[in-house]
Amino acid sequence: MELATIAVVLFDDFETLDAMGPIEVFGCQKECQLRFISREGGIIRSYQGVKVITEQAEGINIDALLVPGGMGTRVLTTETAYLDWLRDLVARSRLCMSVCTGSALLASASTLNGIRATSNKQAFDWVASLNGQVQWQSQARWVHDGKFYTSSGISAGVDMALQVVADIYGQKRAEETATKMEYLWNKEANNDPFSLSQR
Amino acid sequence: MELATIAVVLFDDFETLDAMGPIEVFGCQKECQLRFISREGGIIRSYQGVKVITEQAEGINIDALLVPGGMGTRVLTTETAYLDWLRDLVARSRLCMSVCTGSALLASASTLNGIRATSNKQAFDWVASLNGQVQWQSQARWVHDGKFYTSSGISAGVDMALQVVADIYGQKRAEETATKMEYLWNKEANNDPFSLSQR
Repeated sequence: MELATIAVVLFDDFETLDAMGPIEVFGCQKECQLRFISREGGIIRSYQGVKVITEQAEGINIDALLVPGGMGTRVLTTETAYLDWLRDLVARSRLCMSVCTGSALLASASTLNGIRATSNKQAFDWVASLNGQVQWQSQARWVHDGKFYTSSGISAGVDMALQVVADIYGQKRAEETATKMEYLWNKEANNDPFSLSQR
Repeated sequence: MELATIAVVLFDDFETLDAMGPIEVFGCQKECQLRFISREGGIIRSYQGVKVITEQAEGINIDALLVPGGMGTRVLTTETAYLDWLRDLVARSRLCMSVCTGSALLASASTLNGIRATSNKQAFDWVASLNGQVQWQSQARWVHDGKFYTSSGISAGVDMALQVVADIYGQKRAEETATKMEYLWNKEANNDPFSLSQR
């Protein structure tokens, strides 16, 4: 599988690092082009105040989708029209990643039914309450099931993104990317020091 | 010292995570307001393609400055007018942080003369060549000297930013921030696994 185009789904009050960590990882891959999309297009403001220019999704051939989390998910999980839009994007993608409470959006859009998935550990009970048909994993740095990769909170997205690079471009490439980033990669998907049962 | 206003200095082809990692850390502190500045204001594009809206620095009361690195530093270290602008910003700040080759800009602007400082380890020789009056540290995750905190490459900026939070708001606050970010904080400034002498 190629990841020629990765669409990053942004919305107001997304968590900055949820998106920007994986963007750094994929932005280091010469094969990948990143696109920044939102439902209406235009300027999107992260929870930490970064204003990012986005475009609408129409006409973009999406190989992979990246859905960050953040406070903005709280209202969007209740907005039917937004979830319909997101469900269509997921259907168009061959690979779908979420970071943190991004999985709350995917679950609310009924795209994770029957799928093993995880989320931010401090928001875990809320996320799990949104859709009981998801096989929620309470102890996982990230989970890969079918076309979905879902990660735990914020920083875990970098670890997951490096695993996606390893799965598609090989372990050596992922190691080189981590070294370039001077990043100490947490490579074990099941090693979750922030799981509530581990603390 | 308070960090009421932290100005993030952006320029075309800045490295995304250099800026966004510390932005996440400081954006989690209720006392801190982040401003995103560039010399001309307007839209700035990161090396990974993120388009961020910035403003000019005039009229902003800057407590702390954050200078990321990236490919964009290569040309800016040769632009006298840019370096004059940056030197003025540093003079206006009570605390000045750089990530990765951000220290190449600070060194070229002659703001680090006599100061212990570090930089990205793969670009280290180039950075050190720019100004021999800086006390360059080839093995350091980050260095604190006077009002300057300079970090090693990309991801090291998060570790440094957490230390700044610890120094200003206390160790407990920094630990809580790392936990919220589900981030395994590398707390030792002198533990640099990416130093070329360590690999």
